[in-house]
Amino acid sequence: MFLTRTEYDRGVNTFSPEGRLFQVEYAIEAIKLGSTAIGIKTKEGVVLAVEKRITSPLLEPSSVEKIMEIDDHIGCAMSGLIADARTLVEHARVETQNHRFSYGEPMTVESTTQALCDLALRFGEGDEESMSRPFGVSLLIAGHDENGPSLYNTDPSGTFWQCNAKAIGSGSEGADSSLQEQYNKDLTLKEAEIIALSILKQVMEEKVTPNNVDIAKVAPTYHLYSPSEVEEVISRL
Amino acid sequence: MFLTRTEYDRGVNTFSPEGRLFQVEYAIEAIKLGSTAIGIKTKEGVVLAVEKRITSPLLEPSSVEKIMEIDDHIGCAMSGLIADARTLVEHARVETQNHRFSYGEPMTVESTTQALCDLALRFGEGDEESMSRPFGVSLLIAGHDENGPSLYNTDPSGTFWQCNAKAIGSGSEGADSSLQEQYNKDLTLKEAEIIALSILKQVMEEKVTPNNVDIAKVAPTYHLYSPSEVEEVISRL
Amino acid sequence: MFLTRTEYDRGVNTFSPEGRLFQVEYAIEAIKLGSTAIGIKTKEGVVLAVEKRITSPLLEPSSVEKIMEIDDHIGCAMSGLIADARTLVEHARVETQNHRFSYGEPMTVESTTQALCDLALRFGEGDEESMSRPFGVSLLIAGHDENGPSLYNTDPSGTFWQCNAKAIGSGSEGADSSLQEQYNKDLTLKEAEIIALSILKQVMEEKVTPNNVDIAKVAPTYHLYSPSEVEEVISRL
Amino acid sequence: MFLTRTEYDRGVNTFSPEGRLFQVEYAIEAIKLGSTAIGIKTKEGVVLAVEKRITSPLLEPSSVEKIMEIDDHIGCAMSGLIADARTLVEHARVETQNHRFSYGEPMTVESTTQALCDLALRFGEGDEESMSRPFGVSLLIAGHDENGPSLYNTDPSGTFWQCNAKAIGSGSEGADSSLQEQYNKDLTLKEAEIIALSILKQVMEEKVTPNNVDIAKVAPTYHLYSPSEVEEVISRL
Amino acid sequence: MFLTRTEYDRGVNTFSPEGRLFQVEYAIEAIKLGSTAIGIKTKEGVVLAVEKRITSPLLEPSSVEKIMEIDDHIGCAMSGLIADARTLVEHARVETQNHRFSYGEPMTVESTTQALCDLALRFGEGDEESMSRPFGVSLLIAGHDENGPSLYNTDPSGTFWQCNAKAIGSGSEGADSSLQEQYNKDLTLKEAEIIALSILKQVMEEKVTPNNVDIAKVAPTYHLYSPSEVEEVISRL
Amino acid sequence: MFLTRTEYDRGVNTFSPEGRLFQVEYAIEAIKLGSTAIGIKTKEGVVLAVEKRITSPLLEPSSVEKIMEIDDHIGCAMSGLIADARTLVEHARVETQNHRFSYGEPMTVESTTQALCDLALRFGEGDEESMSRPFGVSLLIAGHDENGPSLYNTDPSGTFWQCNAKAIGSGSEGADSSLQEQYNKDLTLKEAEIIALSILKQVMEEKVTPNNVDIAKVAPTYHLYSPSEVEEVISRL
Amino acid sequence: MFLTRTEYDRGVNTFSPEGRLFQVEYAIEAIKLGSTAIGIKTKEGVVLAVEKRITSPLLEPSSVEKIMEIDDHIGCAMSGLIADARTLVEHARVETQNHRFSYGEPMTVESTTQALCDLALRFGEGDEESMSRPFGVSLLIAGHDENGPSLYNTDPSGTFWQCNAKAIGSGSEGADSSLQEQYNKDLTLKEAEIIALSILKQVMEEKVTPNNVDIAKVAPTYHLYSPSEVEEVISRL
Repeated sequence: MFLTRTEYDRGVNTFSPEGRLFQVEYAIEAIKLGSTAIGIKTKEGVVLAVEKRITSPLLEPSSVEKIMEIDDHIGCAMSGLIADARTLVEHARVETQNHRFSYGEPMTVESTTQALCDLALRFGEGDEESMSRPFGVSLLIAGHDENGPSLYNTDPSGTFWQCNAKAIGSGSEGADSSLQEQYNKDLTLKEAEIIALSILKQVMEEKVTPNNVDIAKVAPTYHLYSPSEVEEVISRL
Repeated sequence: MFLTRTEYDRGVNTFSPEGRLFQVEYAIEAIKLGSTAIGIKTKEGVVLAVEKRITSPLLEPSSVEKIMEIDDHIGCAMSGLIADARTLVEHARVETQNHRFSYGEPMTVESTTQALCDLALRFGEGDEESMSRPFGVSLLIAGHDENGPSLYNTDPSGTFWQCNAKAIGSGSEGADSSLQEQYNKDLTLKEAEIIALSILKQVMEEKVTPNNVDIAKVAPTYHLYSPSEVEEVISRL
Repeated sequence: MFLTRTEYDRGVNTFSPEGRLFQVEYAIEAIKLGSTAIGIKTKEGVVLAVEKRITSPLLEPSSVEKIMEIDDHIGCAMSGLIADARTLVEHARVETQNHRFSYGEPMTVESTTQALCDLALRFGEGDEESMSRPFGVSLLIAGHDENGPSLYNTDPSGTFWQCNAKAIGSGSEGADSSLQEQYNKDLTLKEAEIIALSILKQVMEEKVTPNNVDIAKVAPTYHLYSPSEVEEVISRL
Repeated sequence: MFLTRTEYDRGVNTFSPEGRLFQVEYAIEAIKLGSTAIGIKTKEGVVLAVEKRITSPLLEPSSVEKIMEIDDHIGCAMSGLIADARTLVEHARVETQNHRFSYGEPMTVESTTQALCDLALRFGEGDEESMSRPFGVSLLIAGHDENGPSLYNTDPSGTFWQCNAKAIGSGSEGADSSLQEQYNKDLTLKEAEIIALSILKQVMEEKVTPNNVDIAKVAPTYHLYSPSEVEEVISRL
Repeated sequence: MFLTRTEYDRGVNTFSPEGRLFQVEYAIEAIKLGSTAIGIKTKEGVVLAVEKRITSPLLEPSSVEKIMEIDDHIGCAMSGLIADARTLVEHARVETQNHRFSYGEPMTVESTTQALCDLALRFGEGDEESMSRPFGVSLLIAGHDENGPSLYNTDPSGTFWQCNAKAIGSGSEGADSSLQEQYNKDLTLKEAEIIALSILKQVMEEKVTPNNVDIAKVAPTYHLYSPSEVEEVISRL
Repeated sequence: MFLTRTEYDRGVNTFSPEGRLFQVEYAIEAIKLGSTAIGIKTKEGVVLAVEKRITSPLLEPSSVEKIMEIDDHIGCAMSGLIADARTLVEHARVETQNHRFSYGEPMTVESTTQALCDLALRFGEGDEESMSRPFGVSLLIAGHDENGPSLYNTDPSGTFWQCNAKAIGSGSEGADSSLQEQYNKDLTLKEAEIIALSILKQVMEEKVTPNNVDIAKVAPTYHLYSPSEVEEVISRL
Repeated sequence: MFLTRTEYDRGVNTFSPEGRLFQVEYAIEAIKLGSTAIGIKTKEGVVLAVEKRITSPLLEPSSVEKIMEIDDHIGCAMSGLIADARTLVEHARVETQNHRFSYGEPMTVESTTQALCDLALRFGEGDEESMSRPFGVSLLIAGHDENGPSLYNTDPSGTFWQCNAKAIGSGSEGADSSLQEQYNKDLTLKEAEIIALSILKQVMEEKVTPNNVDIAKVAPTYHLYSPSEVEEVISRL
């Protein structure tokens, strides 16, 4: 039985007899190997926080980018294959710029998320922009538009959900439980910063420093915290 | 025998010795894993109701879209892979808009359904719009045109049927039996709402709330119920 | 020996050592699973009759189309995969319309049949209109042109034959014997209706009603019988 | 050893270690399953005769075309897959028409045969006109040009030979022996008709009638015998 | 070990661990099954002679062409798959005609040979002119240009050599030994005819007649011997 | 278990059940077979040093280029497959030249690195610039732009990191440890030269000479040391 | 273990778990089966010498070209598959001619070598100029440009090295040792001729004659030695 199963799971985009798409499920496994990222939506805006995994003291921490700007009003945190994430983010940047140029207004957060998922769904089809395998990355997309702040989560199948708070990556299971306990709709942005960082701290099993975490907010524009701003949040823990 | 059978079922679009297309059959399995959706046609219009499966309290219920508008006069409920369904719906939206632009009138519900099925049939052919595997989704398409209200059901093989009432997804077997018992051609829209919701309730094995079901009608235009409208139907159960 | 045979039958378009094309033979199996259809040519015109297999009382019988118009003077009945048949019929409709536009006269029934078979033969070749597998459908094409009424039968190999009477689908074997016994060249259209329906009745093992059979004639133009017209034929049985 | 051989014979266009092309050899097997066809060249012109295999009394004999016209001065008889033969003949018709249009004179029989073989040789190359497998058909091409009457035989490998007389199909072995015994260069067309039909009669093991054989001649233009003309030849047997 | 070897030899254009290209080697085997051809260069010109293998007395000997003209000053004899050879010769004819048209002078024999080998080398690359397998044919190219008479031998790998005398095909091993014994640079064309035919006679194990051998010379233009000219050479044996 | 694993690792761009991309991991192995390269960033600029592995005294040392200029302000050292590295460097040269031409200013070091990684990520997609396998090379990219000196490291997955110091290739493990011990942010360029060369010396297990190492700096422009300049650094060891 | 290895080595362009590219390694094996070629650089120019392997006394020695001119100032000797080498040389000739035409000056020897290696690296990518397998040939490229004489060696991986002296082919191992013993930078061209020929003589195990070796020099233009010039070198041995 194990043997026959393996025959399906290499087919890049083929259903198994149970109606499953194994390559997509395996790409989701790639994310479980990734570093942890957390997003929390508040009425004041959205906070993103990620673990950076600096493997060597000689690495430049700021070059390990796991939170990236998509547009003035949208940022995203990622877990999984970083090079895949960069491709998706680059695609989203082009889409949002084109939208601004064509319509004279920013793209909504949902449309941006949909555009990312359209690209993710198209793997294995051989056209110019798509990949020959699923994208091995999950994104937390934080934004602010005419509907106020919003937080989306995408996965390798091209599906997305809107969330109030969400954790992805290797520590996501424990982090999600903590989020459910601590989240309420009246959190301030400052409180959300503390919650995100304290949960990351549990997951990371090492001291949290400006070198091994990144924090960003979209409130209402994207801002990546400087080391001293991160230090300030740590000091409040 | 089992071994030789597996040799056919990975061929994306190949007949088995018995004349079967296994990838299409497996895609139909994907739908049996999906959430339940119900459609009921009345003389006043068509009602669609779906189970939403909110896996975390931090998910935004309204972002789990399983009923979508195609055009003013057409909506659809889906079961199976949501990202696949979005691609089909997006394709249908373009078709209906093009039709309005070219002919100055809305596309009929049947033509819209046919256009969706044409795309579904073309999988594995490598052209730009088609997928490299069958679409793992079943749709209930509700519409209203010059022929009055109508309800169509599509499956991954690209086949469609017109129905008076139909359930799809993991609970479809029991739900279809209930529909056959309770359906008659003289139902009012209000009665259909109650039937649809009471059948979903049996299937879902949990309390029905505006958070875990969506209801929409096409009567004669598409309308997705607000949480309070859903609450009102629940109160009538 | 069984093992080596399976190695050939997955090759979509490959000869076996005995000179056989298994995928085409398997597609022919798909037709043996289909509903039964019957065609009878008379001097007055051609009659087509099909079994509809309404699986649920909530299905709209008229939406289970197994007899379709190709042009004013040509119709066809089908058995096998309905979505495949729709693609072939749509192709034939375009061909006959183009012919009318280019030459100002209707396309002959044989040319229309040949055009359908050309498409059927081209499977597995990767161009835009062809399929990546054989079409799993058999057609009975009824028409009337300058040569009078004619009836053609096509199969998945792209071969066609002109017939006086022919049955296809799961009940074709018994139906063909009955046709050979009852057919003669001097049948009236009314007699052919009775013969077609009485043979269908034997095959279907259930009561024949306007809901589970369709009848059409080309005499000399295509006409699909209304439920009351079908009822009238049933009453004459 | 049998196992390793099967590994080559599925490669559509691959040499085996002994320098053989199995798919072409298997396509030749397809012809051995076909009906018998006979061609005889005389000084007055060429005679073609084929067995028609009418499987049902309800089939229209004239629609089982196994002798077809290519141009005024060229016709061909076929054995094997009829749909493949139609594709080749259609190709040849276009070539001969183009030649007439470009040069104002008929294409020679040899050039027409060469054009057919060029197409047959190109299988498996993925361009628009070629097939993805060898053509499973053998042709007897009868023609008359500035060099007088001629008879060519083509096979699935794209090879052709000029013959005085030749039989193809399931009965070809016995028929070829009979032809060698009975052929001489001074035959009249009338004598050739008798020889062809008497040999077919031996092969077919049933009574020869205008319904189950076709005869044609190119002398110097193509002419397919009417049933009464066939009857006349039969009466002379 | 035999098993692992077979894994390489189906790869159309793949190196084995020993650095061998099996498909090319197998194509060379195809030539060993072919009829024998001989070429001899003299100061007066080049002689080509081939065995024709007339399998049936009803075949037209002149239609079994195994020596063909490429241009006025170049001819070639072939062994192996005749349809492949025709493709190569047709390609060479176009090249030499284009060269005459562009430069107003005949193409040299070496350039013509190189052009043939370029095409032979390009198999398996999927462009329009190349084949999907190696060409299963060996050619002896005889020509006369500003450098005097010359004889080239090509093989399926796209390699060519200039020779004074060479035999190819099933009898090539014995014929090559005989050629080495009998060849000297001062042979007259008449002597070369005798040597070529006497060696063919040994190989063929049957009586040599104008029906089963062809002879041609390029001295300095291509000339295929008529049956009576062949008879005259035979009479001198 | 070993067997099933091998089934994934040949899929050029396919996830294993654990979410791994084996071809990328194997390409990383190719680098572990490569020669050692070291990069050190100082405030004055960046130093690159590589082992050259001159396998024969007859090789021209200067032709074994393992440090190459990309633009005036960017150079790179490589380990792994040199031909792959040349392709990447050539691509980067075109990108930086295009950038200068379009914007009238040098491309930043990070953008150049990103462009290299975009190409590396796109393997297996069949478009014109990408490879059919991962690039088997790791680069150390040294540059100087408006942000001062910087050092990047890329790997076959298309991921990059900014580093203060980094070693790649077969000796990278030991070399990285030594770098962590000896690196501090206040190193002068002259001190970095000594550190790089002394670490290479340990790794190489042979005498360091201008023939078997190359050194380059970007401070602020690219400069490859002449043999005498290398000799001067060796003399300071 | 042997079995699993074979699974990698047929992948035309796939890494094995150890980071190896087997098809390239096997192409290198093809060269070890080739004839021996030697190149020696002196201050006066470069000498190339090759073994010709005349398999039959009837072969024209001058047609076994293993040293070819690329441009006035560049020639090359080859070992491995001669047809592959011709393709590379033809490509290089076009590149050098284009360079002369575009820039009015000869292409440098290194640029020419790089162009050859770019083509060699691109195998398996399906574009028009590249091959579907590695080129099974190694080249010694001798040239003279503004930097004086130079000698390059290329291999099937698309890598190249500049050398003072180098041997390739079946006898390369012994020949390389001899070259290292006898080479010094002050050799005259005449001395290099003697060294090259004496080493070839050891390798070839037969008498060296103008028929079985070729010698060429680039000093500063390409010149292939006539038989009498080769004889003169032999006389000096």
